[in-house]
Amino acid sequence: MSKLFMFEKPLGMRDTLPSLYEPKKMVKDTMTTVINQWGYQFMETPTLEYYDTVGEASAILDQQLFKLLDQQGHTLVLRPDMTAPIARVAASRLVNEGYPLRLAYSANVFRAQQNEAGRPAEFEQIGVECIGDRSISADAEMIALMVSLLQKVGLSTFTIAIGHVGFLQEIFLDIVGNEERAATLRRYLYEKNYVGYREHVKGLPLSSIDKKRLLSLLTLRGNSTQIQSAKEIVEGEAGRKAVEELEQLWTMLEAYGVQDFVKLDLNIVSHMSYYTGIVFEAYAGNIGFPIGNGGRYDQLFQKFDRDKSATGFGIHLDRLLEAKDMKKATAAIHGVLFSQERREEAIEFARMKREEGERVVLQDISGVENVDACTGSFQEVSFFLGKARKGNES
Amino acid sequence: MSKLFMFEKPLGMRDTLPSLYEPKKMVKDTMTTVINQWGYQFMETPTLEYYDTVGEASAILDQQLFKLLDQQGHTLVLRPDMTAPIARVAASRLVNEGYPLRLAYSANVFRAQQNEAGRPAEFEQIGVECIGDRSISADAEMIALMVSLLQKVGLSTFTIAIGHVGFLQEIFLDIVGNEERAATLRRYLYEKNYVGYREHVKGLPLSSIDKKRLLSLLTLRGNSTQIQSAKEIVEGEAGRKAVEELEQLWTMLEAYGVQDFVKLDLNIVSHMSYYTGIVFEAYAGNIGFPIGNGGRYDQLFQKFDRDKSATGFGIHLDRLLEAKDMKKATAAIHGVLFSQERREEAIEFARMKREEGERVVLQDISGVENVDACTGSFQEVSFFLGKARKGNES
Repeated sequence: MSKLFMFEKPLGMRDTLPSLYEPKKMVKDTMTTVINQWGYQFMETPTLEYYDTVGEASAILDQQLFKLLDQQGHTLVLRPDMTAPIARVAASRLVNEGYPLRLAYSANVFRAQQNEAGRPAEFEQIGVECIGDRSISADAEMIALMVSLLQKVGLSTFTIAIGHVGFLQEIFLDIVGNEERAATLRRYLYEKNYVGYREHVKGLPLSSIDKKRLLSLLTLRGNSTQIQSAKEIVEGEAGRKAVEELEQLWTMLEAYGVQDFVKLDLNIVSHMSYYTGIVFEAYAGNIGFPIGNGGRYDQLFQKFDRDKSATGFGIHLDRLLEAKDMKKATAAIHGVLFSQERREEAIEFARMKREEGERVVLQDISGVENVDACTGSFQEVSFFLGKARKGNES
Repeated sequence: MSKLFMFEKPLGMRDTLPSLYEPKKMVKDTMTTVINQWGYQFMETPTLEYYDTVGEASAILDQQLFKLLDQQGHTLVLRPDMTAPIARVAASRLVNEGYPLRLAYSANVFRAQQNEAGRPAEFEQIGVECIGDRSISADAEMIALMVSLLQKVGLSTFTIAIGHVGFLQEIFLDIVGNEERAATLRRYLYEKNYVGYREHVKGLPLSSIDKKRLLSLLTLRGNSTQIQSAKEIVEGEAGRKAVEELEQLWTMLEAYGVQDFVKLDLNIVSHMSYYTGIVFEAYAGNIGFPIGNGGRYDQLFQKFDRDKSATGFGIHLDRLLEAKDMKKATAAIHGVLFSQERREEAIEFARMKREEGERVVLQDISGVENVDACTGSFQEVSFFLGKARKGNES
C-alpha cells in the first residue's frame, strides 16, 4: 500500500475512538428514549440514494454532494440529509398509514468539504419528522420536544431561536417585487451576513419607507413582544397570517411551559429552499453553529406527487457533545488475568461478574506481551495464576 | 424529478420501516450490552476511506467496491468491511494502548451487487476484534462470545462450524506444490463447490495417495474426534501445529461449556485472502449463508507496518433476524387527541404518562384529516375534546 495513505482518512472524515464513542452513545440513547416516549417511530433508509430522487429534493448545494455512478450508469449520492429520504418513504410505502405520521431517525449524513478541513464531511443527526399535520400544534410540538431532548441530555443552558420563513418571504416579495431579488436578500440572512444585508438594502432603488422596513427586520429579535413589532411592518395577507401563526405558537409554547427556552428571531432562514413556515435553531455554549435546527416544509412532498404538510428537526450530535463539554471517558473495566491451570476458575469468576453487570476482560496471561501495560488499562485487576487453589483469587 | 426514479432506491439498497427497526434495535441493544460486558469497547470509523488504505487491505473483490473520486482526485471507497478500518486505527492512534486491544463496532458495510437483486448492497454488522493476542485463548474467547451473543438474543438453535485455514494451506502446498494451485483448491472450498473440488482433484497429476488425502479432507466434519482424523492426513510441521491448535481450542471451549454449540468443519475457508488460522462460521435456521463469521488474521497488520496478531468476528444483523424469524412489530402507542380548549390538560396527561414510560402521541385534533385512520394507529386512545372539565378524560 502507498506509504502516503497508510493511516490517512479522506478530507472531513473522522474516527470516533471509544473514549468519545461511549459518552456519545449515552447521549444518543437518552434522546432515543425521549423520542420514543413522544410516540415517534425510528426507521432507516439507505446511505446511497438516486440523485434524481433525493439528491435533488434535499436541496443541498450540488458541490456538497458525494456522487458516484452505479454499475448501471445511474448517478447515486451519499444522502446529504434525512428529510428527503424519509419523505420518499412516507410518500410511498407509508402512504396508507394513519396520518399524521411521526417518524424519527438516527443516521449519518454526508456533505463534501472543499478546503475547510475543520468541518466534518460525515456527521450524525438525530431527528424527527411530523408529516401530515398542518396545525401550528405540530410546530409547537417540535420545539417542545427539542427543549425536552436538550434538557434530558443535561445541557445546562440553551436557546431556541424561532423565525418564520413565510413572513420574510412576504415582506421581501412585497417590497422588492420578484423572487430573484427576494432570494438575494434571503441569502444575506441565510449567511448571517447582516452588514452585507444593510449595505445591499441601502443600495436598492426603493423608497426610504421600504428601506426602513427592510432594515427594521434586523431588529426583530428578542421576546414575544417583537411579534407586535413584526405586525407593524407587514402588509399583505400571507404576512399577517405568518404573524398570527407566531402568536398562536407562543401561546402553545407557554402551555408546554418552555417559554423560557425560546426567543424570537425573524432573521432566521436556515436553508435556502426548503422551509415554508415556522423555523427554529438551537444554540448552546460557545458553538458558533446551531446544534440543531428545523422547521415546516410544506412543499417537499410535492416533489413526490403528494400534498402533505410537514415539520421536523435534526440535532447535530457532535455539536451537541461539544456544547455539553462532554468529558471523554470509557466505563471502568475489570481485568481478569489467568494462567492455563486456572482457566475454568477465571471463566466462572468472569461469568459471575458479568452477570452482576460489570465489564470484565478475561485475559490469558500467555497472550500478553507487556503485563504492566495490559493491567494498566484496567480499573481493577484480578489474577488467577499458578496452580489451582481453594481461594478465588491468587 | 424524473418520474422513473421518484420512489426508487439503488440496486440492493433497502429501507427499514419502524415495524422491522424496533425489533432489530432490541436485538442490537442486547448484543451491545453483552459485548460491553466482555470488556470490548465500541468505536466508529468513517463510511468513506481511501481506496489505497482500506479498500486494498479489506481484500473484498474489486468489482464489489463502491468507488468514487473526491474533489482532490483520490479514489475513495464505501467501506466493504470493518476489520481493515479498525486495523488502521489500532495501528496508528491506538498503537500505544495496553494490548491486547478489544474493540467492537456496529456499522453498515457496502458491497456492490451486479444482478443479484436479492442480496443487500448495504448491510449492518456487529462485530469485535481482539488485537495483539497470539494465544489460542483469544480464538476460544471469540467463539465463546459468539455463542453467548446468539444465546442472549434468543436464537433457539445454532451451530458454529470451526475450521483452520493454516491446516488447509499446509496440506495444499504440501501436495500440489505452489500457491497458485493451492489457491485453486481453496477457491472450490470457499465457494462450497465440493463436487467441483472432487472433479478437480481427480484430474490432477498426483499419486493416488495424495488424491486420497485431498479427497479425505472433505470428510473432516463433525465432532472433535475428527481432529484425530485430521492428524492422520497432515505431514508438515505447520500442519501439525494447526491440529494442536484445534485440540487446545476444543479443551478451552469445553472450559467455557460451549462444546454443544460447535462442530469441526475443516473445509471452511470463509475468505480468499484474509484469515491465517482458526476460522468459524455460525449457522442457524434455514438461512443458506452464515449469520456470522470470523477468524484469525495475523497478516493484515503487516499492511499497516505493524506486527500484530488478531482475531475477530462479525454478525450479519439482517440474517440473524431472519434466522430468529423475528416478528415485525412496534411497541404500543397511546394516542391523546385534544382540542384547543383542553390543550394544557392534554399536555399534562401526556407528560405524566411519558414519565411512567408509556409512548404517547399528543395530537391536536384540528391537525387530523381522518380521525378514524389516526386513532386506528394507536393501541389506546384518550380524548380531551370540547370545553375543559373537571375529569381528566372526556
